[in-house]
Amino acid sequence: MNCCLAIVLFLLGALVPGAAQADTPSDAKQEAVASIDRQSAEMIGLSDQIWAFAETALREARSAAVLADYAEAQGFAVERGVADMPTAFVASYGKGRPIIGIMGEYDALPGISQRAQTTRQALEEGAAGHGCGHNLFGPASLAAAVAIKELIAAGELDGTIRFIGTPAEEDIGGKLYMLRDGLFDDVDIALAWHPSDEINADTEGSQAMVSFAVEFRGRAAHAAADPWNGRSALDGVELFTHAINLMREHVEPTVRMHYVITDGGDVPNVVPDYARVWCWVRDSEHTSVDKLVERARAAAEGAALATDTTSTFSIESGSYEMLVNLEGAKIIHANMSWLGPIEFTREEQEFAREIQRETGVEITGLRSEPEPLDLTRRAPDGGSTDVADVSWVVPTLHLSVTTAAHDAPWHAWPVVATGGMSIGHRGMVYAAKVLAATMVDLYEHAEQRKAVEAEFEEQTRGFKYRFYIPEGPPPVPAD
Amino acid sequence: MNCCLAIVLFLLGALVPGAAQADTPSDAKQEAVASIDRQSAEMIGLSDQIWAFAETALREARSAAVLADYAEAQGFAVERGVADMPTAFVASYGKGRPIIGIMGEYDALPGISQRAQTTRQALEEGAAGHGCGHNLFGPASLAAAVAIKELIAAGELDGTIRFIGTPAEEDIGGKLYMLRDGLFDDVDIALAWHPSDEINADTEGSQAMVSFAVEFRGRAAHAAADPWNGRSALDGVELFTHAINLMREHVEPTVRMHYVITDGGDVPNVVPDYARVWCWVRDSEHTSVDKLVERARAAAEGAALATDTTSTFSIESGSYEMLVNLEGAKIIHANMSWLGPIEFTREEQEFAREIQRETGVEITGLRSEPEPLDLTRRAPDGGSTDVADVSWVVPTLHLSVTTAAHDAPWHAWPVVATGGMSIGHRGMVYAAKVLAATMVDLYEHAEQRKAVEAEFEEQTRGFKYRFYIPEGPPPVPAD
Amino acid sequence: MNCCLAIVLFLLGALVPGAAQADTPSDAKQEAVASIDRQSAEMIGLSDQIWAFAETALREARSAAVLADYAEAQGFAVERGVADMPTAFVASYGKGRPIIGIMGEYDALPGISQRAQTTRQALEEGAAGHGCGHNLFGPASLAAAVAIKELIAAGELDGTIRFIGTPAEEDIGGKLYMLRDGLFDDVDIALAWHPSDEINADTEGSQAMVSFAVEFRGRAAHAAADPWNGRSALDGVELFTHAINLMREHVEPTVRMHYVITDGGDVPNVVPDYARVWCWVRDSEHTSVDKLVERARAAAEGAALATDTTSTFSIESGSYEMLVNLEGAKIIHANMSWLGPIEFTREEQEFAREIQRETGVEITGLRSEPEPLDLTRRAPDGGSTDVADVSWVVPTLHLSVTTAAHDAPWHAWPVVATGGMSIGHRGMVYAAKVLAATMVDLYEHAEQRKAVEAEFEEQTRGFKYRFYIPEGPPPVPAD
Amino acid sequence: MNCCLAIVLFLLGALVPGAAQADTPSDAKQEAVASIDRQSAEMIGLSDQIWAFAETALREARSAAVLADYAEAQGFAVERGVADMPTAFVASYGKGRPIIGIMGEYDALPGISQRAQTTRQALEEGAAGHGCGHNLFGPASLAAAVAIKELIAAGELDGTIRFIGTPAEEDIGGKLYMLRDGLFDDVDIALAWHPSDEINADTEGSQAMVSFAVEFRGRAAHAAADPWNGRSALDGVELFTHAINLMREHVEPTVRMHYVITDGGDVPNVVPDYARVWCWVRDSEHTSVDKLVERARAAAEGAALATDTTSTFSIESGSYEMLVNLEGAKIIHANMSWLGPIEFTREEQEFAREIQRETGVEITGLRSEPEPLDLTRRAPDGGSTDVADVSWVVPTLHLSVTTAAHDAPWHAWPVVATGGMSIGHRGMVYAAKVLAATMVDLYEHAEQRKAVEAEFEEQTRGFKYRFYIPEGPPPVPAD
Repeated sequence: MNCCLAIVLFLLGALVPGAAQADTPSDAKQEAVASIDRQSAEMIGLSDQIWAFAETALREARSAAVLADYAEAQGFAVERGVADMPTAFVASYGKGRPIIGIMGEYDALPGISQRAQTTRQALEEGAAGHGCGHNLFGPASLAAAVAIKELIAAGELDGTIRFIGTPAEEDIGGKLYMLRDGLFDDVDIALAWHPSDEINADTEGSQAMVSFAVEFRGRAAHAAADPWNGRSALDGVELFTHAINLMREHVEPTVRMHYVITDGGDVPNVVPDYARVWCWVRDSEHTSVDKLVERARAAAEGAALATDTTSTFSIESGSYEMLVNLEGAKIIHANMSWLGPIEFTREEQEFAREIQRETGVEITGLRSEPEPLDLTRRAPDGGSTDVADVSWVVPTLHLSVTTAAHDAPWHAWPVVATGGMSIGHRGMVYAAKVLAATMVDLYEHAEQRKAVEAEFEEQTRGFKYRFYIPEGPPPVPAD
Repeated sequence: MNCCLAIVLFLLGALVPGAAQADTPSDAKQEAVASIDRQSAEMIGLSDQIWAFAETALREARSAAVLADYAEAQGFAVERGVADMPTAFVASYGKGRPIIGIMGEYDALPGISQRAQTTRQALEEGAAGHGCGHNLFGPASLAAAVAIKELIAAGELDGTIRFIGTPAEEDIGGKLYMLRDGLFDDVDIALAWHPSDEINADTEGSQAMVSFAVEFRGRAAHAAADPWNGRSALDGVELFTHAINLMREHVEPTVRMHYVITDGGDVPNVVPDYARVWCWVRDSEHTSVDKLVERARAAAEGAALATDTTSTFSIESGSYEMLVNLEGAKIIHANMSWLGPIEFTREEQEFAREIQRETGVEITGLRSEPEPLDLTRRAPDGGSTDVADVSWVVPTLHLSVTTAAHDAPWHAWPVVATGGMSIGHRGMVYAAKVLAATMVDLYEHAEQRKAVEAEFEEQTRGFKYRFYIPEGPPPVPAD
Repeated sequence: MNCCLAIVLFLLGALVPGAAQADTPSDAKQEAVASIDRQSAEMIGLSDQIWAFAETALREARSAAVLADYAEAQGFAVERGVADMPTAFVASYGKGRPIIGIMGEYDALPGISQRAQTTRQALEEGAAGHGCGHNLFGPASLAAAVAIKELIAAGELDGTIRFIGTPAEEDIGGKLYMLRDGLFDDVDIALAWHPSDEINADTEGSQAMVSFAVEFRGRAAHAAADPWNGRSALDGVELFTHAINLMREHVEPTVRMHYVITDGGDVPNVVPDYARVWCWVRDSEHTSVDKLVERARAAAEGAALATDTTSTFSIESGSYEMLVNLEGAKIIHANMSWLGPIEFTREEQEFAREIQRETGVEITGLRSEPEPLDLTRRAPDGGSTDVADVSWVVPTLHLSVTTAAHDAPWHAWPVVATGGMSIGHRGMVYAAKVLAATMVDLYEHAEQRKAVEAEFEEQTRGFKYRFYIPEGPPPVPAD
Repeated sequence: MNCCLAIVLFLLGALVPGAAQADTPSDAKQEAVASIDRQSAEMIGLSDQIWAFAETALREARSAAVLADYAEAQGFAVERGVADMPTAFVASYGKGRPIIGIMGEYDALPGISQRAQTTRQALEEGAAGHGCGHNLFGPASLAAAVAIKELIAAGELDGTIRFIGTPAEEDIGGKLYMLRDGLFDDVDIALAWHPSDEINADTEGSQAMVSFAVEFRGRAAHAAADPWNGRSALDGVELFTHAINLMREHVEPTVRMHYVITDGGDVPNVVPDYARVWCWVRDSEHTSVDKLVERARAAAEGAALATDTTSTFSIESGSYEMLVNLEGAKIIHANMSWLGPIEFTREEQEFAREIQRETGVEITGLRSEPEPLDLTRRAPDGGSTDVADVSWVVPTLHLSVTTAAHDAPWHAWPVVATGGMSIGHRGMVYAAKVLAATMVDLYEHAEQRKAVEAEFEEQTRGFKYRFYIPEGPPPVPAD
């Protein structure tokens, strides 16, 4: 079904009765927000450090360390190196139920190093950069957890707060290994946020995704002397990618497929006997993705058959579509409404507009107002996250906060730029406040927890979550 | 220049002992040549008619008719429509051994209609043309047969002369159906010639070839409304051809592979559920071609698998490589040496040079001298003929005669042009003379026949010819 | 912007004031509906004839003739062969304003001949078939026009009714030539319907589309003897289509691009010097399509450059996106509500379910109830029509009526099957009634006409319609 | 089998008058050969070290060092790091004319690490290996130079001997930088040999070659969120390689084109804005290669145009075809005839046959007899060397010596295997002897030098050698 058609089930947020409108914020909630303000200088320090480290998936040693150290200093019990990943950690405080888990990411993206300025210029040529804003993600979540810890410590809230440091979101899906190791098993409700170009109590979800690699093996030969005795593994890759591109016409418009060629031969002189393509396939639902993966598997086999090579098809990772919790979104939205817009300065708006000019998108600056709540269940825009896997195991609340110029390209230098200066900082602090306030609601109001949990139960009845990751430990790089 | 050709710069001909150098031509031979001169006006009439008819494979109704009528008028017994092909015929005269068969072709090529002039201009846009000179081929062979018939009738030679009218050389390989029907079974020695850009007692042979079609079948769908429900058969074709092009790096330099897409969908609006590609594969030996065909078959299966379509792979026809008879070549060469060069006029040379200018090849005019005899056994240049299949069943002598500007593109307008005017005529008459003279030698000299036959026996010992054509009657078009 | 996002401009039909709910149908409306019932046997006869003729674009000689004859017999003034197309005609009755035009199509699609049965079987192998239901389209529109003519003749309505016989919708866009010739210039409001798998007062519109051909020209050569002297025009086509398939990743999900290879070479033996691909590009708005066409043009130039061939890029036709008239949709929907559902028989429902089983879609039978009115402006599903071009020149009302099993593939045999038996007939009669009733409203209620026209004026202010068709007469086939 | 090879079954060598048949070897020559025998243990030590180092182009630090050290220890004046390459060096001894230069290579090939055994097993997975036998090349040439040095030192020969250590043959063509720096300017005659599967006074030459890279640049975007805003640089690469593969049909059979994709994107998540393909093009003559490079350049431009990316085309290196010196070949062949066959042991022959079994080639063992001298000028087999560039500047003599199993794949593990054990050692020692003996002839016989030089003058008259390498220093890797 076309996504456009799918939408005709919409409901207007404004019309929905029973939206959790917190009339007057509780004392605890006001204190939580005040805690974030107190922590803001340290948050900025942490995010700027992580921004400068720019460590990619499973290499986030220093980034994880500064966060874990901060948690420890604040009195959390910290377990480092969980789920066989040196950069995964869990920081807990309190005891008993409810157990609220809040996730923090901190991995960077390769190849998009950028200065915090409005024109493209690498900080270090070829190096990694925080093109997805994860330098802000971890500190905001952690600060919110600290705010809750303070309230538990003060006896104002009961239960347990747990910060879950989740590495390698951009690559292998670190949360899957943490789920597999049971690190979310006793969590009642989980929260996460994400840097964005708008402020939103997310109800749109994210796409299901599978990451796989196809390796082709041929027969080496001197490419000039006797190429007829060789069979090029790269031929297999090229035919496979052609098949994928032909397939694009024959998939639903919601599908996304993309790949890179990670091994395309060593030297022209030798017919390559090994080549490898790495591919991601996504759609609105993991059931659809499963079918697409089978078609891609056939494409790989066909490409091998047609080029007299052999292929190996390996699923490396994958995420489900996000299970949106509308009850949770109502709570988040109410807190956003209470907090109001982010107060960006004129200079920050101008910085954003410069970036928009530079990248050729509409010159609209930064979105500072929370978006209206949209409670429609609808096809997600393109994009995936391993937070979505958590959402099928634990009821998960998710929000977005502006840290970048509207419509500026994501996973690209503009996001690195604003994430490394006051625009990103301001969004991070705001996110921490919404997270803290929302958690206060969950601790204080059992009926809100129950509504969140009931919706989750309803949607997952009879469902069995199945990991996309292969058996064995996570692929931690040796170096 | 092809490396194989490049090497033929050493001339063994002069050194070869025992080359059949006819010291003084026999009376019969002189009379045979005189007969060709007498027939020349009628030969030109026949070839010009066939040139104008320009009938393609298995549609050569009028072309076959004028030749068969001429044979009948000369006293031959003519059997028309043999081997289930309306345009195949056999014209015989005489009785007893030896039985010498001489082949004549007369089919044109689609899409290369051309006037007899030095610049490209179609006689009729989109129509067929004699781009391989077969309008000259049939009349020259037939005139040579008539010359022999006259000598048998006069009691100067003993045995049987048989003109074999062989249609559809350019497409299905008409001679294979005639071989299958036993029409060559009692022939002792067969002869053929071919229009060319030089004069040669051919010792280079021709390539083995297989023609096959791959049909892909997918699933139709509205290409805008629900292309995701469709599977494009054309995708299968495109991936298959890509595989063939990738394969080119991994075949020997002697291989030729070429294809056309004969069905590529009806209207863009509909995802095509049927598409078809027609492909020829060639190499120096049919054993190699067989292997290449298996690789192409795997490419078709792989392309279908990779595009979620199905494929059908059908071998349509094929030819062996030519079995060169060196003893025969010596006889032919001796007769060429006796006859000397073709006397092209200054205007004809200029006509050829104009064509060479127009097509951007070296300006060398027409080759009028017979090439030196080269008795090396070597890889053939690109090209195939169903005469080669005859050569594995009957000892076959083959020669080439200049009818086109040197190096001008074959199967193209320049060959149509010179074949429709005096250049082609002059070559045709010369070819008829060489053929007639060579046949006189074969009738008169039993030891020359034996040498030819002994070489054939030696080379085919233990060999079993296997037809490439499918079972069932030839694919005569319905219209 | 994603189409899903685009939609957040929605309006709830239920909330819209002033929906034209006709309390009690007027006498004229009731008589119009009775006229359709009276004409139904003749309508079925006409549609079955056109179904059997199955004439493709600009070859609809007999189909156009039976309709024009019927109009003439009913007292219309008929002008045949308008706009330089032998199969285009206009049938008029009455005088003065308003002038209501109603369009009728009657062209079939190549290659999908099918019997009126529940399994795939061609009536005539390889022949055309009415896979888009145009055999029903023309008769229903004409019958509605006749019903209005009767009321004008009876003095019950004032103005002019004009049936516009529009050929070649499936191919060149016949209506564009009729627009260019001014045949719609004096029409106040136009109507059209379309066979469908549901009943709908259409508010979704249709896609903008451009049809273009790319011809590649190379250099012929003997594919075995000297392919290195050739340049394959087919190489150009293959590289172009590869580029289009690569481009699919980099276009919005609303885009549709599809092509067929109409000329892919003659015989493998010759390097093709000519090849041609025919391509359609569509999107929600013609401004986007224009940009895509420029990218495709660059792809053609690049493919030619990369293959040492030349390319010619020719825009052959094109349509705008449909300008939806919501005021008109309200009138149509009110009439559908009054008429109620189509009463399909149990056998017809079973017939439809058989087809759904056969084609592997959900087994839901026929949709007999009108769909709820949806007044959202939104991205159209895939599909285009030259009715949309009319909609930018004249306010146009458009509806769909069930004539095929729900979700069965369009432009395919299931639509041919149901269009040739009582399911199609029943839909056709229903469509004629809705059209007739709606036209009665337009004649009787000036304020409804004004509302329709005002919406049109509002949306086209400052707009200049620009034809996608090339200069010169329509490409009427010679045979 | 290549047709060119096939033809070399006629032996003109025996017929050639004036072949320099050294009736009785001079004392100097006998001493030179004895010197090689004396040095053999050290040669084996050097070659085994270099084999184990397996250092690739411009990283041959230790390999160059052990050779330079040996030369220095033998009394040569050694200049290291010449021509801006740390691993290039020149070792000279003697004074005055003639100056004979002898070249030595020592770079390995990436990715083909292999143990000295008959089945494929890497010494170190993924590491480099001596798949072209250059571990033998350097030591043999150097030992020959030492033998000459001893004779000069002993006053038996007059002139200068110069060992030229030439790095990076497999990659950038190190000799071109040395030519550019004038390091061959005063050399009268140069010599080189190459490990092979047969013993040959080479008269076949090598192919001209150009190495170029094409970099594509597109526009990054989130591959799921807004791929329509991205333009994939990898699309450019894929379309370019498709064009190259299409082009294969339209080049002469002597052409070789091969490529690897060195950069094919970082992560699937991001539309790659950079990708790079590295390509080599070869043919029998550099004039043809120049034309092919222009076609490839157009293919790159076309691919960029068609994919909305930009391309940069950079010629990185290139070699001319070898200018074969037939007079020199006669001298070499005479010395081979005098030395006779290599005495391989039964175990060595069995080792070679095992490799032949393992790689599926004909089981013929090692070729131990020198091949007959073939003085035909002919198209080279596939393969290139920067020795060929030297051959256009200085008269160059070149020979091949068996160091590998016949027909075993080159640039592959079998060559690494035999090069690391006694088979390779034996070939190396033999090569050194032929080189030494040939140089003795050149020093002792001015008329032989003159014949060599006269042939060179004749062939290069009016010729101006033009470097394929770009301006600027050689691309020495930073690490």
